[in-house]
Amino acid sequence: MNFCPQCGGKLALRVPPGDTLPRHVCDSCGVVHYKNPLMVIGAIPEWEDRILLCKRAIEPRLGKWTLPAGFMELGETTAQAAIRETLEEACARIEISDAFTMLSVPHVNQVHIFYRAKLLDLEFGPGEESLEVALFRENEIPWQEIAFRTIAATLRHYYSDRSQGTYRFHAGEVAAPK
Amino acid sequence: MNFCPQCGGKLALRVPPGDTLPRHVCDSCGVVHYKNPLMVIGAIPEWEDRILLCKRAIEPRLGKWTLPAGFMELGETTAQAAIRETLEEACARIEISDAFTMLSVPHVNQVHIFYRAKLLDLEFGPGEESLEVALFRENEIPWQEIAFRTIAATLRHYYSDRSQGTYRFHAGEVAAPK
Repeated sequence: MNFCPQCGGKLALRVPPGDTLPRHVCDSCGVVHYKNPLMVIGAIPEWEDRILLCKRAIEPRLGKWTLPAGFMELGETTAQAAIRETLEEACARIEISDAFTMLSVPHVNQVHIFYRAKLLDLEFGPGEESLEVALFRENEIPWQEIAFRTIAATLRHYYSDRSQGTYRFHAGEVAAPK
Repeated sequence: MNFCPQCGGKLALRVPPGDTLPRHVCDSCGVVHYKNPLMVIGAIPEWEDRILLCKRAIEPRLGKWTLPAGFMELGETTAQAAIRETLEEACARIEISDAFTMLSVPHVNQVHIFYRAKLLDLEFGPGEESLEVALFRENEIPWQEIAFRTIAATLRHYYSDRSQGTYRFHAGEVAAPK
């Protein structure tokens, strides 16, 4: 961040009065510009004993498998974001069930949230950001080809809970790769 | 948003190729600037049968009571944000327990997340953004003086769960005032 999005003036990086962290402050108009973590919201669409995964058509992790998910937009709820992303990436209609995982990824300033969801029909297919969309049984999950660690963690919680016969909410974090 | 934070060029509001929503696009350097919802993270600090609330020293809702909470910062986890905000607003040390509520507030582009937490000692007091910090029993909660509807909703879930002897995670939304 170099220039003030509001007035176009030069930005300085300093701690504003009463604050504790350096912020981008405009010396022309005085506005303080904050940067904050982003939410990535997705779904685990279930059809009988299978779940829906998407093969990514874009970087990062092109060609790897993911749950449908993406950045939450202004003006929507987390549940609406999960429904929209599933429609965009997998052309699939879902009914949202319970929130299932909330995983902080502090080294990339993100929080990833996944809902369990019921796939409403089998009319799905790849959206613009997917190469392929398919249903997987537990023993078919391509564990070595999963795009992101929050996806792998969510899938591990899912099958662990399922084997115990009860799903609960999991909050946690995913550390930076070593 | 009028100017590109990166190069200072004029921004145009239009739908980029492959996108579905209008974004702020820089015609000089080509960068697309996204705006996304913000996370507000807080805690329900418990001490025996009481919980800690803060009287706000700042707008909005100056003079009203709130759970300690604030905007999540870059580089932290949701749990760390709850601990930091409780220290900043109530000078109180907590140990995080389970995530308890996640409430979307789409009309202000926010998601509010609260953790149950154990207050570690009684050495608390007002931080810069609080006028007063105090412990309340259920029958002492100033329901008519609660700052935000997500706080009231979180407290209602809390006492409802407590009366049933078990706490569970609550995801939902708070609609715009009529």
